[in-house]
Amino acid sequence: MKSSPLETRVVPISAGPGRLRLLDQRRLPRQETWIDCRSADDAGEAIRSLAVRGVPLIGVAAAWGLALEARRLARSAGFEAAWEEAAVRLAAARPTAVNLGAAIDRMRAAFRASAGAPPSARVALLETEAGRFEDEDRAACEAIARHGAGWLSRCLGGDPDSPVTLLTHCNAGALATAGVGTALGVVRALATERPVSVFADETRPFWQGARLTAWELAKDEIGVTILPDVAASSLIASGRVSAAIVGADRIAANGDVANKVGTYGVALACRAHGVPFVVAAPRTTLDPACPSGAQIPIEWRDGTEVLLLDPSGDSPLSVAPTGVPALYPAFDVTPAALVDAIVTEAGVSVPPHAEGLARLLGLP
Amino acid sequence: MKSSPLETRVVPISAGPGRLRLLDQRRLPRQETWIDCRSADDAGEAIRSLAVRGVPLIGVAAAWGLALEARRLARSAGFEAAWEEAAVRLAAARPTAVNLGAAIDRMRAAFRASAGAPPSARVALLETEAGRFEDEDRAACEAIARHGAGWLSRCLGGDPDSPVTLLTHCNAGALATAGVGTALGVVRALATERPVSVFADETRPFWQGARLTAWELAKDEIGVTILPDVAASSLIASGRVSAAIVGADRIAANGDVANKVGTYGVALACRAHGVPFVVAAPRTTLDPACPSGAQIPIEWRDGTEVLLLDPSGDSPLSVAPTGVPALYPAFDVTPAALVDAIVTEAGVSVPPHAEGLARLLGLP
Repeated sequence: MKSSPLETRVVPISAGPGRLRLLDQRRLPRQETWIDCRSADDAGEAIRSLAVRGVPLIGVAAAWGLALEARRLARSAGFEAAWEEAAVRLAAARPTAVNLGAAIDRMRAAFRASAGAPPSARVALLETEAGRFEDEDRAACEAIARHGAGWLSRCLGGDPDSPVTLLTHCNAGALATAGVGTALGVVRALATERPVSVFADETRPFWQGARLTAWELAKDEIGVTILPDVAASSLIASGRVSAAIVGADRIAANGDVANKVGTYGVALACRAHGVPFVVAAPRTTLDPACPSGAQIPIEWRDGTEVLLLDPSGDSPLSVAPTGVPALYPAFDVTPAALVDAIVTEAGVSVPPHAEGLARLLGLP
Repeated sequence: MKSSPLETRVVPISAGPGRLRLLDQRRLPRQETWIDCRSADDAGEAIRSLAVRGVPLIGVAAAWGLALEARRLARSAGFEAAWEEAAVRLAAARPTAVNLGAAIDRMRAAFRASAGAPPSARVALLETEAGRFEDEDRAACEAIARHGAGWLSRCLGGDPDSPVTLLTHCNAGALATAGVGTALGVVRALATERPVSVFADETRPFWQGARLTAWELAKDEIGVTILPDVAASSLIASGRVSAAIVGADRIAANGDVANKVGTYGVALACRAHGVPFVVAAPRTTLDPACPSGAQIPIEWRDGTEVLLLDPSGDSPLSVAPTGVPALYPAFDVTPAALVDAIVTEAGVSVPPHAEGLARLLGLP
């Protein structure tokens, strides 16, 4: 049985030949404003300023930014060199985002493969490649969503009509991809089968849960309730959470998962109360060269970001006394032992993840 | 060896015959404004509006409020009946605060014991009783601080000059008592012996950590760093936290601890990484009539309070999309099995806490 594709009203990117528009996520949920990119530098600035975020979406935006750049430069002298310089600048927009580099390398390969062809043909080829990249991301989301929903359905069992309540942290949704999202893609897929509601951790300090996850689920009419991050552990203890599902920024070869800070606390509480803890991420998130979480570099951001209560507002403010510093580790590592399933477009890894992930990667 | 009393510059109450001034904690850290109470109703309003918070401090404020009321009414007809009515109204200011009722009952007993004496003598007696109540709270804080620091020193061992880093959640400090505080009293006592610094969880949704704990420790020149609540688990995992210490709202006979929501998550992470988790609270917090945490009623507050980013500000605002609800369980329960020590003025309970607490209460 082939089901129709999952749907979402949340589409943070609109691109095509000569066109790249990006939803400014810094302004959500207050305003839905779009950034009209005219060049690869415009796309880079959107990525750098966090107007566009989410590992998969950054890659797609970069691919289209380079297609756009080719069209812009095609009639200029020094087309090839100028395009390559733009690609180098774009790669620097978020130096730690592995996925950004991968997207750029792929566009670069396509560009080089078309050397000698007329500029207009090269432009068309890059636009085709960017579209293919976007389609692949959309397909990966769809596959992740189906695999994850299937695994969760089997895991949770019970009456297939009984309501399921999922807890999530941060935003691994349609806003982070060109498709239905990763963790929230699984939510959407499950919601086509049975009643689903979501607890969204606020996800301090940038409120990606309260701002973005709440917004996108409400937009798709999936029931969502905001939770102070600190309430997740006791809510899990209370039995009101069927499972937790989150995204990932990087997954080590042994299955240790780096994700937005706070994920680890959710995983600890899930394990203490026998609640399944699931990670959903595209296969590009798997890093077989990284043996364990200990080798994943954790980004420490400026502590002053913690003191801003409303980074998307016009008057960011702090409740803290003047002069008191703050710490902001942006990510944390959840040990593989606490992760019940890692869902990718290639399938689901269950413990031991070292073997499960190698299988998904097709490694010997 | 008798050491001199611990000191703090943080004194949220100033009271004496005919005088009750309370620091308005809603305005901290932005403004240090004082509420001048003229009656028991004024004290009740300060308690009801959360200008005054902290279980021990509420009791002291209520005792002084009733002494003030006696002085106000002493020359009126119907002194006794009017005073009793004021006591009844005051008890309703925070119906769930056990300690408030206990303070009022004690003042009531003193008032009744003085029946027949001239009004001025009865006023003096109530003022003496309120002063005694305040002194006892101050002494309890001092004893908790000494017991806790002693236990932690022995537990942490190592070079007595080596720095210690304590993590705390919410505010169990001088701002919550008439003395040096409970959990932060222990911090102050330990800081007289060795270098101590503190990580203060922000403690959403009311930011008692970022607003109050950070303010009071900075005021006493104890190093404090604010932490998003979600970062506590990974910070504990990183080895940068020597011990966690928190207050309590109620402790069941088996040692289960109800405290500000988020405490449980800190305790889970401490246990996962062998970091001592300590609770400091006055003996009045022990509830031998409550067999376990399952019987502690958990206050669920209005979810809209979660959506206010800046409850102490003039323009409370939300980052969340309009119409999305929020949940706010105000407390959580940490199972006794995760609590390494419960520190009271009568000494320290270590597991098994059912026995340890009975001993502290002098129960058979």
